[in-house]
Amino acid sequence: MTDPLEATSGEDAVVARTIRRLARSSAGLPVGPGHDCAVVSVDGAKVVVTSDVLIDGVHFHLAECGPEAAAQKSVLVNLSDLAAAAALPVAYEVGVVLPRGGGEALADGLARGFAEVSERYDVPCAGGDTNVAESPLVIAITALGRAGPTGRILTRSGAEVGDLLSVTGPLGGSIRGRHLSVTPRIQEAQVLVAADAVHAMMDISDGLSRDLPRLCRASGVGAVLDAARIPIHVDAVSEKHGRSALAHALDDGEDFELLVAHAPLDEKTQAGLRERGVRLLPVGEVVPAEEGLTLRDADGRSPLPARGYDHFASALESPPRDA
Amino acid sequence: MTDPLEATSGEDAVVARTIRRLARSSAGLPVGPGHDCAVVSVDGAKVVVTSDVLIDGVHFHLAECGPEAAAQKSVLVNLSDLAAAAALPVAYEVGVVLPRGGGEALADGLARGFAEVSERYDVPCAGGDTNVAESPLVIAITALGRAGPTGRILTRSGAEVGDLLSVTGPLGGSIRGRHLSVTPRIQEAQVLVAADAVHAMMDISDGLSRDLPRLCRASGVGAVLDAARIPIHVDAVSEKHGRSALAHALDDGEDFELLVAHAPLDEKTQAGLRERGVRLLPVGEVVPAEEGLTLRDADGRSPLPARGYDHFASALESPPRDA
Repeated sequence: MTDPLEATSGEDAVVARTIRRLARSSAGLPVGPGHDCAVVSVDGAKVVVTSDVLIDGVHFHLAECGPEAAAQKSVLVNLSDLAAAAALPVAYEVGVVLPRGGGEALADGLARGFAEVSERYDVPCAGGDTNVAESPLVIAITALGRAGPTGRILTRSGAEVGDLLSVTGPLGGSIRGRHLSVTPRIQEAQVLVAADAVHAMMDISDGLSRDLPRLCRASGVGAVLDAARIPIHVDAVSEKHGRSALAHALDDGEDFELLVAHAPLDEKTQAGLRERGVRLLPVGEVVPAEEGLTLRDADGRSPLPARGYDHFASALESPPRDA
Repeated sequence: MTDPLEATSGEDAVVARTIRRLARSSAGLPVGPGHDCAVVSVDGAKVVVTSDVLIDGVHFHLAECGPEAAAQKSVLVNLSDLAAAAALPVAYEVGVVLPRGGGEALADGLARGFAEVSERYDVPCAGGDTNVAESPLVIAITALGRAGPTGRILTRSGAEVGDLLSVTGPLGGSIRGRHLSVTPRIQEAQVLVAADAVHAMMDISDGLSRDLPRLCRASGVGAVLDAARIPIHVDAVSEKHGRSALAHALDDGEDFELLVAHAPLDEKTQAGLRERGVRLLPVGEVVPAEEGLTLRDADGRSPLPARGYDHFASALESPPRDA
């Protein structure tokens, strides 16, 4: 029997193979590849680092949203990864490929977007590199962060059987606008890590149905999601396209809420989180790895198909996914 | 009279405008944008950071060099930037855009290249992000470094009138192979910074004629190059194409030698550098900013036209360069 959690094709399989190839050199890192952020040690300091590449036509539509919003989203999704590690942003680097003929107006619009988000989050742009090619606009961001007052950095590993799985907000339908106006859960993550009950965390970028298996694989556990408890965003209700609102909440991606595996919380802790503005909406629980990943509804448990966004799905020679 | 050193069009002008726009947020960084590396402070540690984006058809030709060499070059040019700051490499992040239909073989080839260079330079890949788009292959690297034993980080600023300008090796004709098999001058930079005579440093990526003005602008100085002393690589001699070998040495780019502004060295210091394997080949001297940038030959001094590689030259609506 194959491991029910193992990715055998698509993006996750390529990433897993790449990580194995790089394992020898990255073994000494405090946190290596395979999480929302890595941790690198520099002169005794823990430097949290994360990268995301955003592309016109994939992550934004430049003609519709304009360069300022594209630049802002590109930084914000990286700040969301820092939040998932319970890190505080320190600075970011920018790599840009401008389409040939794109012109100075595009470069200037991007610069305005970076400046705006830098000031809003008090996180400087440290530098970068800009090139021109026969290419769609590409924005590659690497963000650097540091641990908050607790000194703890969270990863996708560490979820334990018996943990609850919760999310910090309703899911689905982000295409209606939230996928651009991303709100990285930086402060929420600080509150959560201070509560000292969180064992693993990540942000939901490709959809709960695709991201939860990543957390489970990193932690060596399985999970059960409760269909009735998945918090459905109002945007998912209005974004039907022949799929149920639940399917949108599970699969849409780009919610940028946090997915949290944590010990059950007593009423006092829960009240403390609420007072500090953090919602933890329970969606399921962590089970042994052998049980795989299932969705529980009135009819019982069935395997959870990962229908979230696979950046590789149409690009590789892999057999088509049977999901 | 306009500032003889000010970039008024092309890449340098766009970069300068972007840096001005971001200045408010980056003012607090130990070293901000505009140098080969920035320096970010994390829990008291100086983290050196640099980014370069490499693109198929611009920085390498994937069909000719293959994915391993493309991946290796992408990391090596970033290690060269760390060397220019006299930093030691700690780790790097990778952002990749794979062309649609490129397939798993391409992703695997890149992973092999990253693994090889990681082991050769003992610098781990900390993580990254891979996407697929209708795009040429794009490899965006951000490298992190730390100060060496001296604790000093060098920048493009700090060159002083009366300094000598030297390079660490002969220039020109890198297209014949060296542009792929880049040798970052990491150890040479450590030797140089320990000699305590170096005031400013950068690596030569776009050609001496384009990179020297950047060092001069950052330092607020001018420079005179001695035509007879420019060390011409044997590759430049055989790479004529109707231009002189000197023109190749000044303009070709991708030499990845260090350009060093330093106090005149006594014979003992020079011998010490040679013993430790560092050549410092003098090419000119630093003069007051008012004198601009000139090339001195048997006929006297004439303005040095910046003919090196401008990544923006054909992309923006700027008037054509009159160089």
